[in-house]
Amino acid sequence: MKLGMVGLGRMGGNMATRLIQGGHQVVGTDRGEEAVKELGAHGGIGAKTLAELVSKLESPRSVWLMVPSGKPVDDLLEELFKLLSPGDTVIDGGNSNFHDSERRAALVHSKGFTWLDCGTSGGIWGLEKGYCLMIGGEKAVYQRHVPIFETLAPPNGQLHVGPAGAGHYVKMIHNGIEYGMLQAYGEGFEIMKAGPYELDLGGISHLWNQGSVVRSWLLELAERAFQSDPQLENIRGYVEDSGEGRWTVMEAMDRNVPAPVLTLSLQARFSSRQSESFSAKVIAALRNEFGGHAVKKK
Amino acid sequence: MKLGMVGLGRMGGNMATRLIQGGHQVVGTDRGEEAVKELGAHGGIGAKTLAELVSKLESPRSVWLMVPSGKPVDDLLEELFKLLSPGDTVIDGGNSNFHDSERRAALVHSKGFTWLDCGTSGGIWGLEKGYCLMIGGEKAVYQRHVPIFETLAPPNGQLHVGPAGAGHYVKMIHNGIEYGMLQAYGEGFEIMKAGPYELDLGGISHLWNQGSVVRSWLLELAERAFQSDPQLENIRGYVEDSGEGRWTVMEAMDRNVPAPVLTLSLQARFSSRQSESFSAKVIAALRNEFGGHAVKKK
Repeated sequence: MKLGMVGLGRMGGNMATRLIQGGHQVVGTDRGEEAVKELGAHGGIGAKTLAELVSKLESPRSVWLMVPSGKPVDDLLEELFKLLSPGDTVIDGGNSNFHDSERRAALVHSKGFTWLDCGTSGGIWGLEKGYCLMIGGEKAVYQRHVPIFETLAPPNGQLHVGPAGAGHYVKMIHNGIEYGMLQAYGEGFEIMKAGPYELDLGGISHLWNQGSVVRSWLLELAERAFQSDPQLENIRGYVEDSGEGRWTVMEAMDRNVPAPVLTLSLQARFSSRQSESFSAKVIAALRNEFGGHAVKKK
Repeated sequence: MKLGMVGLGRMGGNMATRLIQGGHQVVGTDRGEEAVKELGAHGGIGAKTLAELVSKLESPRSVWLMVPSGKPVDDLLEELFKLLSPGDTVIDGGNSNFHDSERRAALVHSKGFTWLDCGTSGGIWGLEKGYCLMIGGEKAVYQRHVPIFETLAPPNGQLHVGPAGAGHYVKMIHNGIEYGMLQAYGEGFEIMKAGPYELDLGGISHLWNQGSVVRSWLLELAERAFQSDPQLENIRGYVEDSGEGRWTVMEAMDRNVPAPVLTLSLQARFSSRQSESFSAKVIAALRNEFGGHAVKKK
């Protein structure tokens, strides 16, 4: 198939490359000139503007957005609405909030276009191993794009999971679970590091991946990390979050579902970004007030 | 090698079978006559008593204990001390607390015997796929038993992780991490089930195992569970714990390591066993007291 790819960053650029390697034609654009040039070097067709990208596609067009979630997607849609023809399809492959995707799908349909949202997992490894794709939208529109999804994904690695929004919903939950898994591994390794034995954390990661109950791809990445830096001395214990973890927690609240571990995994990231906790200050002050417990002064 | 296996239950029985299939000789005993008979059917040598088992091994003997943790291990050791000869080795392959293993190793050595503790992971799948083995004790004693460990484990699936106690320590942390991972998956699936879309949880489990960041062996088991019962209608939301999760939490406290997710994962299991929460009763009563909020009466 022929596809337009808007956003040629770490994810979009690699996905374009994988599509081209799979025999598809990709017209790509990006704010960065370098990324567009690189697409050309990989056999893709560069476009300097969104209008040029659209003009290089034939109806019914398919335009894949791979840009940061939020305003960038809305802005691009506004621009696309002026360029697309009825029946063209917009695919949002980024990490958008599913509420936004439901709203955008309705808007896109109201303009006579069609919509798919595609949750995309696999990170920088996707180029080589394929991306796991969770796709929401009309089934017929999905079916028309299966050749693209099949190229991007490993075998059985793409699925139509429901109507518009469902793709990003499933991806959101996926990331929420990821937060919990990461935190579980993190805590386990921290206890081992603090424990009574001098343990080879890299060796144990490798060991656990051979038939243990906790074996996983994340644990394979832990092997790599400990191999190159056995005590993680060159990495700060500072962890960002990119939205989907907190959306998962919000969704748990909206649905009145207890999700203590996913919630705490998010909040552990907040803690990781503090050099000092104000709540700890308050607690220290109050212990001093009621019990005369010593406080550490600045 | 020739090995004595004490305890031929779900784990010990399968491990004996795997050892026999790998060319070792296994003398086994169990309180249950059936299990001893079954060992015979698999090519092992049955023994009615511990004394008979010991008598059918030649010095230096190796006796593998695969029994419930706690008193059963201490009782067996007392009995074994009367039967073993200097230089014989006791291997505790069960889920013992590492503090107990340190104490027992010292005791075993004081009697002139040698000791290994072996954390064993793999569950009922180990017979086919091999057991992941985390081994603590003297290196030389470990090395003498490598042929056995290599047969039990998949390739690279056995490792000497440290001195006596370290094997069970690493296994304890392994299980603590497992609690956190299970809880993360559980919460994610519960949100999806309560969410706005009708999602095929089995299909999504399978999908996620194809290249997504959360792919894991536990998620492969989730596929199986959802395949046979898509809404888990035949399973109660009641979860036991077998000790190592709580030992991990205790160890985190002993070491002053924050481990909120492993702790909450354990406590979520406690909650799962309550038909009603007394703390929720207290909260409902107090909300009624201070705010006149309605309570649900029995």
